Amino acid sequence: MPAINKTRLLSNLRTLAEFGRYKTGVHRPTYSDQDMASRTWLAEKMREAGLAASIDGIGNVIGLGEQPARARLLTGSHSESQNHAGWLDGALGVIYGIETALAFKGDRSTAEFGIDVGAWADEEGHFGSLIGSRSFCGELNDDELTGLKNKHNGTPLTEALARVGLSSRPRARIDAERYVGYFEAHIEQGAVLEREGKSIGIVTSIIGNWQYRIRFFGTQNHAGTTPMRYRRDAGVALVNFCSAVNERFPQIVGPETVWTACRISLLPGAQHIIPGEAELLFQFRDTDAARLRALEQLLMDISRDRDVIGPCQCVVEAMSRSFPSAMAPELQRSIEAAAQRHASGRVMRMASGAGHDAQIFARVLPSAMLFVPSIGGISHHWDENTSDDDIALGCQVYADAAQLMLESHS
Amino acid sequence: MPAINKTRLLSNLRTLAEFGRYKTGVHRPTYSDQDMASRTWLAEKMREAGLAASIDGIGNVIGLGEQPARARLLTGSHSESQNHAGWLDGALGVIYGIETALAFKGDRSTAEFGIDVGAWADEEGHFGSLIGSRSFCGELNDDELTGLKNKHNGTPLTEALARVGLSSRPRARIDAERYVGYFEAHIEQGAVLEREGKSIGIVTSIIGNWQYRIRFFGTQNHAGTTPMRYRRDAGVALVNFCSAVNERFPQIVGPETVWTACRISLLPGAQHIIPGEAELLFQFRDTDAARLRALEQLLMDISRDRDVIGPCQCVVEAMSRSFPSAMAPELQRSIEAAAQRHASGRVMRMASGAGHDAQIFARVLPSAMLFVPSIGGISHHWDENTSDDDIALGCQVYADAAQLMLESHS
Repeated sequence: MPAINKTRLLSNLRTLAEFGRYKTGVHRPTYSDQDMASRTWLAEKMREAGLAASIDGIGNVIGLGEQPARARLLTGSHSESQNHAGWLDGALGVIYGIETALAFKGDRSTAEFGIDVGAWADEEGHFGSLIGSRSFCGELNDDELTGLKNKHNGTPLTEALARVGLSSRPRARIDAERYVGYFEAHIEQGAVLEREGKSIGIVTSIIGNWQYRIRFFGTQNHAGTTPMRYRRDAGVALVNFCSAVNERFPQIVGPETVWTACRISLLPGAQHIIPGEAELLFQFRDTDAARLRALEQLLMDISRDRDVIGPCQCVVEAMSRSFPSAMAPELQRSIEAAAQRHASGRVMRMASGAGHDAQIFARVLPSAMLFVPSIGGISHHWDENTSDDDIALGCQVYADAAQLMLESHS
Repeated sequence: MPAINKTRLLSNLRTLAEFGRYKTGVHRPTYSDQDMASRTWLAEKMREAGLAASIDGIGNVIGLGEQPARARLLTGSHSESQNHAGWLDGALGVIYGIETALAFKGDRSTAEFGIDVGAWADEEGHFGSLIGSRSFCGELNDDELTGLKNKHNGTPLTEALARVGLSSRPRARIDAERYVGYFEAHIEQGAVLEREGKSIGIVTSIIGNWQYRIRFFGTQNHAGTTPMRYRRDAGVALVNFCSAVNERFPQIVGPETVWTACRISLLPGAQHIIPGEAELLFQFRDTDAARLRALEQLLMDISRDRDVIGPCQCVVEAMSRSFPSAMAPELQRSIEAAAQRHASGRVMRMASGAGHDAQIFARVLPSAMLFVPSIGGISHHWDENTSDDDIALGCQVYADAAQLMLESHS
């Protein structure tokens, strides 16, 4: 049984949190000085765990075992943070991978297995969508890369890579044949585990997220001199649209479906003026692709319903559609078995409502995710935290599950 | 019968529109160089109409007849514009006053009557609410004046007055005993006259406008990881609130009631985040103070209705409440009689959905307003216009109505 070292685990997590420390969290955007320093440090830690580690041309830190192995698992997550965010997030999954590699190295029962570790660049999307794991899985071509810019300051990705000396390095590619699967740990980023009194979440699926910009066109007019009967109020159409969504979506959603009106703008948005235009940023998420399509159809139906939009026009524009990624059932069973050893009765299966690198790896490898609780469900904020006991418990379950995955596949 | 001079009328309006000309309209904010130049020009025009004219300490241009008169009427409107707005708006009413004074002077039947003219400063509210007419009617004290700032650039009113040399001048006060009433002409600023095929609107009442800032407080969360059952979405509460207003208001409104959601903000208003706060800028208007109070009560009821706001909190803050001002019935009858002479069948009574200086004068004098059609209902935009024939017809009806008002009161 590979025993993790709680002191070393927490010490490594706390050391990593010093790179870009901000209040009780970190500010470590992709390719910032603090991010690059942390990647160099992570490569050293991977070497201490017996891995040949390097940073590739997109910033992925990749540690590969060089000894022959009966079976290998690819582990990891991401190490950069959102701006002014929390200390754990993806960093937890990277350190879990390193700790597991160390535990495996120190245990006779796992000496024949290989644990590779990756820290995938820019999962947080400062420049693009999951570009580190997509690059590693062969999904990011040079054309897309050349067009990407930093969302906050507009710096081109190519310029950012040149600044930190990565431009001339090749981008590494996965050898999928090498692995029995991909296994990622992450904080839950929600409050479900805490509310349900659980310590370990076994991810069944990473949900697809479909996003829309929905615009309403009416006629701008004076809010005092235009009788109600003459109005084409784009704001009224938007409110009716949102109400119709909240009324009709429940008829076809599943227990994991979520939908959110994230932003509303009325134009011009001024006192005494009837809005001539209105805009809604809307999204829904589900684990079932068929249901996502049905929800989109319903959205289109509502957008054309005269009882909803009245005399206004409504234009629905799909901004992005990510598809659900199912986690491998046999890997879920390994996590379940490991979790029952250490946290009996405090385990639950759940969908991931947030996106993760594992959704990319799931296209090329059987993939799995383990969640640990987020205190108060807080995420992407410096108040983000998980208790030390939950961090250690999660890592031991993770290491045991890795062993079970490797044993059942070798 | 005082005959207006169409050529002179249109020529004066077009000359006034040269001060701050912008595209097909004007940009003549209060106390701008172009505004002050136009006030000096207006004072000259008032002198040509036989009036002793001066600019007072708030910028009001006031022309007073010095000859004894059997009865006098106070006429006028405002001459500054909204930013980048139309050439007529209040300018029409000031020039109607001057043209009527000229017509009265040239006609034996009206020689014994007096027509005073005012151009009230800042009706458009660059600094405050109707400060010119309120100053003239004794409603603006020095404390309020000292606190006012330009809404667009923050310049204190006192500084703006100093810059244009008005600080040391006294602010003129109305001698209400001098007048049988106040009579103001204005473009309609709406499309009712045009849609109804009418040329003259007789204002029955200037509607009251009650404005609110309504805030909703929920819990900000991740839009992917927070199941629907745990949410306290402030945006959903806001949408439900607006829907409830649109559903319940019609049960108690009158034909002239209007209500508008002018601005909506969801906070933080970002992708992937459930809004933790939401804000609505809302207003309703009516000619009946009792109905305004009932609408406010309904608004408060909705804000406390758990079926509407769910698990969120709702706070309703009244920003301003202007009360309806009834126009004097006997003056309305004079306009009616004059209009039937020149535009039989093309006259209608209507409420004013916008605010005007007449609502201030109505507190100290019997007051009346006449509207001419706005092409396409356009107002506060350089496309604002009224046909030359409607402008001339409106002025003749105005002059005749003024005579009838004076005759019936003398």
